[in-house]
Amino acid sequence: MSTAFIGLGAMGYPMARHLAAQEDTLVWNRTFARAEAHEAEYGSEARPLTELAQADIIFSCLPTSTEVWEVLRALDGYLMPDTVWVDCTSGHPAEAPRQAAWLKERGVAWLDAPVSGGVAGAEAGTLTVMVGGDAAALERVRPRLAFAGKTVHVGGVGAGFAVKAVNNTLLAVNLWAAGEGLAALKAAGVDLSAALDVINASSGRSNATENLIGQRVLTREFPATFALGLLAKDVGIGLDLVATHKGSAPLLGQTAGLYRAAERMVGAAEDHTAALKLIEQMNDVELT
Amino acid sequence: MSTAFIGLGAMGYPMARHLAAQEDTLVWNRTFARAEAHEAEYGSEARPLTELAQADIIFSCLPTSTEVWEVLRALDGYLMPDTVWVDCTSGHPAEAPRQAAWLKERGVAWLDAPVSGGVAGAEAGTLTVMVGGDAAALERVRPRLAFAGKTVHVGGVGAGFAVKAVNNTLLAVNLWAAGEGLAALKAAGVDLSAALDVINASSGRSNATENLIGQRVLTREFPATFALGLLAKDVGIGLDLVATHKGSAPLLGQTAGLYRAAERMVGAAEDHTAALKLIEQMNDVELT
Amino acid sequence: MSTAFIGLGAMGYPMARHLAAQEDTLVWNRTFARAEAHEAEYGSEARPLTELAQADIIFSCLPTSTEVWEVLRALDGYLMPDTVWVDCTSGHPAEAPRQAAWLKERGVAWLDAPVSGGVAGAEAGTLTVMVGGDAAALERVRPRLAFAGKTVHVGGVGAGFAVKAVNNTLLAVNLWAAGEGLAALKAAGVDLSAALDVINASSGRSNATENLIGQRVLTREFPATFALGLLAKDVGIGLDLVATHKGSAPLLGQTAGLYRAAERMVGAAEDHTAALKLIEQMNDVELT
Amino acid sequence: MSTAFIGLGAMGYPMARHLAAQEDTLVWNRTFARAEAHEAEYGSEARPLTELAQADIIFSCLPTSTEVWEVLRALDGYLMPDTVWVDCTSGHPAEAPRQAAWLKERGVAWLDAPVSGGVAGAEAGTLTVMVGGDAAALERVRPRLAFAGKTVHVGGVGAGFAVKAVNNTLLAVNLWAAGEGLAALKAAGVDLSAALDVINASSGRSNATENLIGQRVLTREFPATFALGLLAKDVGIGLDLVATHKGSAPLLGQTAGLYRAAERMVGAAEDHTAALKLIEQMNDVELT
Repeated sequence: MSTAFIGLGAMGYPMARHLAAQEDTLVWNRTFARAEAHEAEYGSEARPLTELAQADIIFSCLPTSTEVWEVLRALDGYLMPDTVWVDCTSGHPAEAPRQAAWLKERGVAWLDAPVSGGVAGAEAGTLTVMVGGDAAALERVRPRLAFAGKTVHVGGVGAGFAVKAVNNTLLAVNLWAAGEGLAALKAAGVDLSAALDVINASSGRSNATENLIGQRVLTREFPATFALGLLAKDVGIGLDLVATHKGSAPLLGQTAGLYRAAERMVGAAEDHTAALKLIEQMNDVELT
Repeated sequence: MSTAFIGLGAMGYPMARHLAAQEDTLVWNRTFARAEAHEAEYGSEARPLTELAQADIIFSCLPTSTEVWEVLRALDGYLMPDTVWVDCTSGHPAEAPRQAAWLKERGVAWLDAPVSGGVAGAEAGTLTVMVGGDAAALERVRPRLAFAGKTVHVGGVGAGFAVKAVNNTLLAVNLWAAGEGLAALKAAGVDLSAALDVINASSGRSNATENLIGQRVLTREFPATFALGLLAKDVGIGLDLVATHKGSAPLLGQTAGLYRAAERMVGAAEDHTAALKLIEQMNDVELT
Repeated sequence: MSTAFIGLGAMGYPMARHLAAQEDTLVWNRTFARAEAHEAEYGSEARPLTELAQADIIFSCLPTSTEVWEVLRALDGYLMPDTVWVDCTSGHPAEAPRQAAWLKERGVAWLDAPVSGGVAGAEAGTLTVMVGGDAAALERVRPRLAFAGKTVHVGGVGAGFAVKAVNNTLLAVNLWAAGEGLAALKAAGVDLSAALDVINASSGRSNATENLIGQRVLTREFPATFALGLLAKDVGIGLDLVATHKGSAPLLGQTAGLYRAAERMVGAAEDHTAALKLIEQMNDVELT
Repeated sequence: MSTAFIGLGAMGYPMARHLAAQEDTLVWNRTFARAEAHEAEYGSEARPLTELAQADIIFSCLPTSTEVWEVLRALDGYLMPDTVWVDCTSGHPAEAPRQAAWLKERGVAWLDAPVSGGVAGAEAGTLTVMVGGDAAALERVRPRLAFAGKTVHVGGVGAGFAVKAVNNTLLAVNLWAAGEGLAALKAAGVDLSAALDVINASSGRSNATENLIGQRVLTREFPATFALGLLAKDVGIGLDLVATHKGSAPLLGQTAGLYRAAERMVGAAEDHTAALKLIEQMNDVELT
């Protein structure tokens, strides 16, 4: 019985550490040196991708569902029945049923299990995991989610991706709105630190005002832990979810457009909080 | 040395109780029976409006700046020098300098001091007070803000109103966005309680998701503690603030329009969380 | 040499009349009695679907690309090389290359050729046709577009659908914006007929103000010639086009959400101009 | 009997020419050399401001209502009873009743009479004039509106300004939406001239697509005839009108924010069509 982990990015690298501390863990990464570093640092085993198919639980944590498909296809012919595939990617809800069906033909169960909590949560092993798929498969996997602080079964295949997309879309809206509001206060001559202090003790507070703007924007640090381009992608997924069901979400629709603009005008690789640099330009103020 | 309190509405009534527990407190309310009830219940003194001018601190807590002007004019000729007027109304930042100037001509200092924390915070005496105006006047008043849990000086005259308007505008955006997102999840067959549980442990959380939607919307209770019409008014003030400085706030601009629609189509006297009933109609889902 | 026409809806019925007046025209419709009526009225020949494959040009004019796929699959095995398929559906730009490739395997050329001009234009034979696909195929077809007043080659496969989706999205935005603006004027006590008269002689005019609002909204007639649900679908296609290229279109994104709301709250089968009934509710005014 | 004209800007200069060709016309401009040039060129009489009060009709055509107030105050004590003041400024509907009342105290009638048609219309004498105020005053003035091609009485005092603000707001929306739509088509590889040709023969057309984008944007000329900053101001007035009546206009609300951003990021003095340069940046395409 062993675990496999595919994708040692900013999130995956510390997530796989918690697995390796608990059981035999095979790791693979496209840039393979990163897998070897993980082995050296945490005692996992860096192996060729196809060898990871021998584990009974395979985790993937990749940029988008497109990369997950690439890995799945590379493993075609190697996958073994009774494996559970746990995809921690912030994937697309419309891809989940296709990937689940593809795996089912090969005897493999699917769980979409994206995480929230950022790099800090991954390092602390306190991530929130939102799981879509078969409840029995989740129960089999649950004791081995060593990186999780909280695990919630939110529905059938794709429900995990859907909740993640909506969560990140709300992050995007709350962050942007706070930026517009603070820009207005700045123009009115209000001290932004005091304003943020008040808002964080009031009804307008959000994770964006409590944990992001004071620490990353007012300080001008914008540390790149979660890329603006990835958040723009997630908001796009959120809007796709709305469109799939012919939903009406005019506020999210506008937000999607604004983040695509920020991605292009500020930079896709910048931290997601740097979206507020576009608001600064739009208002000719600095959020300090 | 005594305090006066004008406006015993849902917020003012419990706020004045804390003052009365600490010092002699004169109270007045347009529907005067409510002032008499306050006297009977909390030992304040219900008096004709003009008699309240003898206090050295006068609080007002009224629906809008328009009602504050009415009270000011009614007190013309009665106000005494060295009084401090503390307006806890969610007033308009553009009215504050006019009201401060009018009072200054009569020797009275002005502080705009709107509060956040709702009826529960007013009853517990833990309100957040955001204060605009002269720092020395605030220091004189500070020990006597018996209803406050946290008091922050955010800037000059009008800055308190500005921060309050922005705070409530952020509440409005965060609440509406959460409604749109949950409507999409509902249409996708996701369990909303589970989704909310996850979001509240994740980056998309806000006061709206943590303290309002689960308690007021999913339960279908919508208890009317803060009226939708008043929130729509506050968002309008937020947008006025943006316009005053020729600011760019496209997301807030859309939100203002949506809340005016909700006010009309759901009802101005409904709880502000009932705005999500309009989102339910827009999406033909129920947020349960 | 003969022509075939599939889909005798509100647009297709009069379009096929112009073809039948010019050459032998085979017609088919799901509700076949409508094809027989066309034969009786205009001298076309109502035939089983598979017999239409013998024509050298096959037109389709259906609600969405989904119905086009159904017809294509029903004709599999019957299609003949050197045919040109001309799809006048307001189809999806992402489906066009798939449908073109499927037809190419069977030796058939593809043109996406949606039309604009409404039922009146179809009856008059003055439709604007926006064509995507191979220029040589278009030249072969061009003399036989008997329903066209103007035919423009806008690009490769799918470009016709893309332009149609954007055109209809602009119609949707211009119409909605005019509704919001007129609602404000109504609330201000301005005479709307006079206002519309002025706007139509000024820089804010659009097809919506010139040809729709005065004739359909102010008269309260809302004649159902182009369904609100179909316009909402087209705006959704427009937004899909934006998303495909990670474009930034915040105004179109909001508009898509508003039309989905109108579709549900006013009725998908109502005329598209009835979207303004939702604006009337949002503002509590009547646009008369 | 003579006419006076105050404000010889891009619009006023040619407007006053038509008056001077018809009757004795006194002119004044802040930069007085421009008034002298007008006299030399067109036979008007350049005079000190206070002397213009002797005319029986006084036209003003200034940037905003603020400048109109400055002129009114400068003429206090000089105005004569039975004069009609015709303000062709794109003024603010909330200022009109104040200015009308101020003039009425001095025996002067007020008409708000903003114009549409641009510099070309002013030169040709074919402007559309939208008039708010007393019908009898308008009838007295009507034969002397030498610059008008069409004059419409739209309502009471301020109604002319209201219609002008809404007209320009619609121009702004239609222009921006067309920019977003064309940016999507450009990204999809569609030829924009062909697309514009089709749209202008279809239901999505507007004055923006017919007369502005092809001539000013695709050509990259952006000739500065109507400043972006003035259009952003007008949209702000439109939104003020909405707010005055607690109206719901979410699409106009977003648009106001986007134009303030364009004003800052592209330049207030640029032509209004240069707003699309911001859309180009948001999408990383060039609209050619």
